[in-house]
Amino acid sequence: MSLPEPVPPGGGGAEFLTEIRQQPQALRALLEHERDYARVATRARERGATTVRMVGHGSSDNATSYGVYAFGLLPRWTALRDSIALTAYYDAGLDMSGSTVIALSQSGRTPDVIDYLGRARKAGGYTVALTNDVSSDLAGEAEEVLPLAAGPERAVAASKTYLNQIAALGLFAAYAAGEGRQFADGIRATADLLEELMPTLEPRVRTVALSFASVGRMFVVGRGIEFATAREIALKLLETCRVAAEPLTATALQHGPVAALDPLFPVWTIASDDETLPAVVQAAERVHAVGATLVASGDAADRLVGAAYSLPVPKPPVPLLSPLLSVVPGQLFAAALARARGLDPDHPVGLSKVTLAR
Amino acid sequence: MSLPEPVPPGGGGAEFLTEIRQQPQALRALLEHERDYARVATRARERGATTVRMVGHGSSDNATSYGVYAFGLLPRWTALRDSIALTAYYDAGLDMSGSTVIALSQSGRTPDVIDYLGRARKAGGYTVALTNDVSSDLAGEAEEVLPLAAGPERAVAASKTYLNQIAALGLFAAYAAGEGRQFADGIRATADLLEELMPTLEPRVRTVALSFASVGRMFVVGRGIEFATAREIALKLLETCRVAAEPLTATALQHGPVAALDPLFPVWTIASDDETLPAVVQAAERVHAVGATLVASGDAADRLVGAAYSLPVPKPPVPLLSPLLSVVPGQLFAAALARARGLDPDHPVGLSKVTLAR
Repeated sequence: MSLPEPVPPGGGGAEFLTEIRQQPQALRALLEHERDYARVATRARERGATTVRMVGHGSSDNATSYGVYAFGLLPRWTALRDSIALTAYYDAGLDMSGSTVIALSQSGRTPDVIDYLGRARKAGGYTVALTNDVSSDLAGEAEEVLPLAAGPERAVAASKTYLNQIAALGLFAAYAAGEGRQFADGIRATADLLEELMPTLEPRVRTVALSFASVGRMFVVGRGIEFATAREIALKLLETCRVAAEPLTATALQHGPVAALDPLFPVWTIASDDETLPAVVQAAERVHAVGATLVASGDAADRLVGAAYSLPVPKPPVPLLSPLLSVVPGQLFAAALARARGLDPDHPVGLSKVTLAR
Repeated sequence: MSLPEPVPPGGGGAEFLTEIRQQPQALRALLEHERDYARVATRARERGATTVRMVGHGSSDNATSYGVYAFGLLPRWTALRDSIALTAYYDAGLDMSGSTVIALSQSGRTPDVIDYLGRARKAGGYTVALTNDVSSDLAGEAEEVLPLAAGPERAVAASKTYLNQIAALGLFAAYAAGEGRQFADGIRATADLLEELMPTLEPRVRTVALSFASVGRMFVVGRGIEFATAREIALKLLETCRVAAEPLTATALQHGPVAALDPLFPVWTIASDDETLPAVVQAAERVHAVGATLVASGDAADRLVGAAYSLPVPKPPVPLLSPLLSVVPGQLFAAALARARGLDPDHPVGLSKVTLAR
């Protein structure tokens, strides 16, 4: 069996794959703005804005699932994926004094996110735009702008923007907890690990992906800090490979969806070595028991019994950084599977890089 | 073509269908406990516990998506679907004074929900169990118990428990806002509307469901207060019909997943007549444009252009009650489709009524 060329010669996912590979350097570029993150985190603490409201769509929304844990575990602040509709459509008029409001948008041009942020600012929130375009409308609407610094992202399917969003939310949370410097060092070390990993991971993932050429549906399972990873991998599979992939927490899987599984309905499971691991191991056991194909990933992939395929990643310096590594096999899998199916992740049918939909 | 018998003669979904039909009386039974809801809402206000943390799994978790809007729109409190993992697994130790903590569980026996609630109580939260079993372990762990009063639910796939959870969260929120009596009257009137609707809706849904016998994947789209409905319908399709059904907000659909659609990938869309309707109408236009089959539901179903099937419901007395009606065509659709596929929604393979998984 001949494997696909390492880099497609142009079109057909060349940009998506290039941007996945650029992720270590994108993370390092983010760290050049460390002082901005330190300053905004200090200001949030001084203002007593210790409820964190995060909004975004698509990959940006997926990253906010990580923010819940980063802010919960580091400064022990309550962070939530806020409802855009409640404020931007229903005009609920919640009191947002006491809130840091973080709007995530790659382009800074997502209409209802801009609308939401303007209202949040009027409602007393400390508003922060997290975007690649520091001169965007979203940046103009916000009190503070934090650069994502992922560099130009040309593929419609996001990769390095997502990774930098995860790192940015973690860095913000770490500075709010007074642990920013150590966290930044951790990101730097994780970028190095990722760079070392990439050359061996890519061909391994390509081989696995070929077995999934005719799969139409999948579950992607993660829990805790890895639920964001599950959401992001599922979205990549949907938008680049047209696989009906649904993200589920390990426990949610067992409250109903497990009944849908069969041998042609594979489950991608992210197992990282933290307090949620026993729940993930248990969920994988049920997946295996019903005869569904199990793909084990994450830095504790070897703890999942009965996996048909294993795509492990190294352990980062601290567990909270594992989502920077665990998403990458999923990104590469989506790139390889799209190519195997003749689809173009740089330009999926019906999508554009900037979504102006309300 | 001969339609299935109105009531299957036993097994094969007889209990699920019976319980769907019992929903008007289940809602009335809930209202017998109106005073408990009034008392607990008053107490929450007196304690200043105006951040609402809600947890549950499966249908219970779906209902919490409605709670975000009920508490946001009525007393204008910030309500969130809290992370169970953050507290029960990672032991984050968030300060929950100032929080009303509502744990939803039909059986009151879900292990990590009980664990979470105990920790929330120690963290200063005003803890409330919302359950059908007021003598359950969950009830024992909570400071207050609010009966769901849905009556015994025997089918593994929940129906009346979900509807009563929606009504219960709305009633709690309405009493917190000083509008409880009017809201209770609204629930009563909606129960009457549902009772009138059922005899004509059932055969209509059965006819539509037959066209979906070979469908393997669907999206279910709703926004705002109807996102809970989208989540619940998708879960019914997954657990009773083995359809890979994913719930999406109208806007999230356009940030990626729309690329996966094709004529064999139908989209069920819930359109209710409120401020989110323009976003839902726009999403439906894109679904229609890519040639996917569109099912229009909700009380504004007639506003969606290009629907292949329409399953409208009546308008309730106030828009916030529309989720009590809009979920019912989806429940009936799941019951009919399961039957058409020879599956048993009373006992889906691999599930039991009480999920003891962590």
